[in-house]
Amino acid sequence: MSAFPDAVRDRDVPSGAAARVSTPEPGDPRLARLSLNQRTTANWSLREAVDGCTAAGIGSIGVWREPVAEAGLATAARMIGDAGLRVSSVCRGGFFTPSDPAARAAAHRDNLAAIDETAALGCRTLVLVPGGLPEGDRGIAGARSRVAEAVAALVPHARERGVRLGIEPMHPVFAADRGVISTLAQALDIAEQHPSDVAGVVVDTFHVWWEPGILEQIDRAGERIVSYQVCDWITPLPADTLLSRGMVGDGHIDFPALTRAVAATGYRGDVEVEIFNADVWAAPGTDVLATMARRYVEFVQPYL
Amino acid sequence: MSAFPDAVRDRDVPSGAAARVSTPEPGDPRLARLSLNQRTTANWSLREAVDGCTAAGIGSIGVWREPVAEAGLATAARMIGDAGLRVSSVCRGGFFTPSDPAARAAAHRDNLAAIDETAALGCRTLVLVPGGLPEGDRGIAGARSRVAEAVAALVPHARERGVRLGIEPMHPVFAADRGVISTLAQALDIAEQHPSDVAGVVVDTFHVWWEPGILEQIDRAGERIVSYQVCDWITPLPADTLLSRGMVGDGHIDFPALTRAVAATGYRGDVEVEIFNADVWAAPGTDVLATMARRYVEFVQPYL
Repeated sequence: MSAFPDAVRDRDVPSGAAARVSTPEPGDPRLARLSLNQRTTANWSLREAVDGCTAAGIGSIGVWREPVAEAGLATAARMIGDAGLRVSSVCRGGFFTPSDPAARAAAHRDNLAAIDETAALGCRTLVLVPGGLPEGDRGIAGARSRVAEAVAALVPHARERGVRLGIEPMHPVFAADRGVISTLAQALDIAEQHPSDVAGVVVDTFHVWWEPGILEQIDRAGERIVSYQVCDWITPLPADTLLSRGMVGDGHIDFPALTRAVAATGYRGDVEVEIFNADVWAAPGTDVLATMARRYVEFVQPYL
Repeated sequence: MSAFPDAVRDRDVPSGAAARVSTPEPGDPRLARLSLNQRTTANWSLREAVDGCTAAGIGSIGVWREPVAEAGLATAARMIGDAGLRVSSVCRGGFFTPSDPAARAAAHRDNLAAIDETAALGCRTLVLVPGGLPEGDRGIAGARSRVAEAVAALVPHARERGVRLGIEPMHPVFAADRGVISTLAQALDIAEQHPSDVAGVVVDTFHVWWEPGILEQIDRAGERIVSYQVCDWITPLPADTLLSRGMVGDGHIDFPALTRAVAATGYRGDVEVEIFNADVWAAPGTDVLATMARRYVEFVQPYL
């Protein structure tokens, strides 16, 4: 009998390769800080995601507002609380870049609601996706200024609710249509205009791994890191760039180096696995969680 | 009769939209600095590209080594010289990132040859594509260092041949598989280790439009800009990221702002249109050149 029967039995998803390590069992202390971002199992309802985490021994979940709204905010909070899960982050506020005043006001109101929902879920971190260029607008500097202004406008309400705003720099492949804040350095320039207990940054390996001086920027971020999210950059890039994220370990990102840098800042929060990928979504959720746990203990957890 | 019969008759490629301005005729002084990068008409041989430029009144061409080799270096130089065209740049040297010593030595030799070919074509500018991460190598910082070392090793030979090395920062979407130098700031950090008459940078709007502080970096580049290349960032991004470049004016890039900044450095060289795009390649070359000339006089030339 093999010393690692799981390694023989299990296949990684979506690669189909034989697992290199055995799947950590529920209760394994190495899983203590692992969190499932709901988008990694996009076909699961919130109920299924909560049950999946419980079964896999994952103690934390990053939730999205849409499935929470579907379940009902109070029901969702109860469901998660009854399962004993932490909510590592709420995704997502943001989309701050409209130039039209009415659209900007609507975005502000929606973000106030997102802050309230975050607090109601007992979570301290709201992830902010900056937003892209408005239709026909080629002024990226102006769009970036509007993000800074919109964040400033949310600070008082976030503080009142005890919620930290996590500005998420996005890979420049999304600069036109999703997130005009392209580097951790830029996100920090905005966050540093406010106290660190209310304005922070999200470090997502997919978005920032290529950034010149990224280790120094993570060090600069210090206590402002409100969420550490992991997934890989794979090549060739899948046809739909929105779904181009890879399972940790399947691509080009140096997880040990980035994770050590995040840990060195004193970050003690959960580590979310957030993967938008059609092949991952097509796999059974339980297999996704098993691969995710294996890759986490192989590439991330030892460096925390 | 319309005052702009061309505007009525002509259709832009690949959009199919009606042309907004009339096509500049050969001899139009606005075309004086426009250059066709051969890859924009990838299905044309060098002979066809040279003839296409002549017919359209475009006085400059950016050539690729492969089609030049196909024609024969001496024949190519004669063909271009007989047509009275300038060679605005030679694409491309580079691919400096192998970690294996034998592969690095081979890359160095190939770059020496590329410098010789550039000089033989009467051109002063060799474009350097840095190269991506070696298979299985996740150390982007190391790969970046190897680029700097490889450029330094080429400087003496380039100087001897009167060729300027143009380090091309590439959009971070290519950081893993094509170019680990991701910003103009990074490219300048490398170029500035050498005299400006031998080490410069390529400013390609597609690669750098999103860069935080890009206008300041262009100003910093000053006389080190050895090539200004234009094409657009379009969304949704085409499925093959290598072929995701758009016709000038079809996307999100602020050409007036970038062009003014380049002109303010004192750049007096040609402006190359370099578009990798399957739809552009599927269109007749003469239509591509006509659209390219119209978009150039609309979005670029007035700001030079």
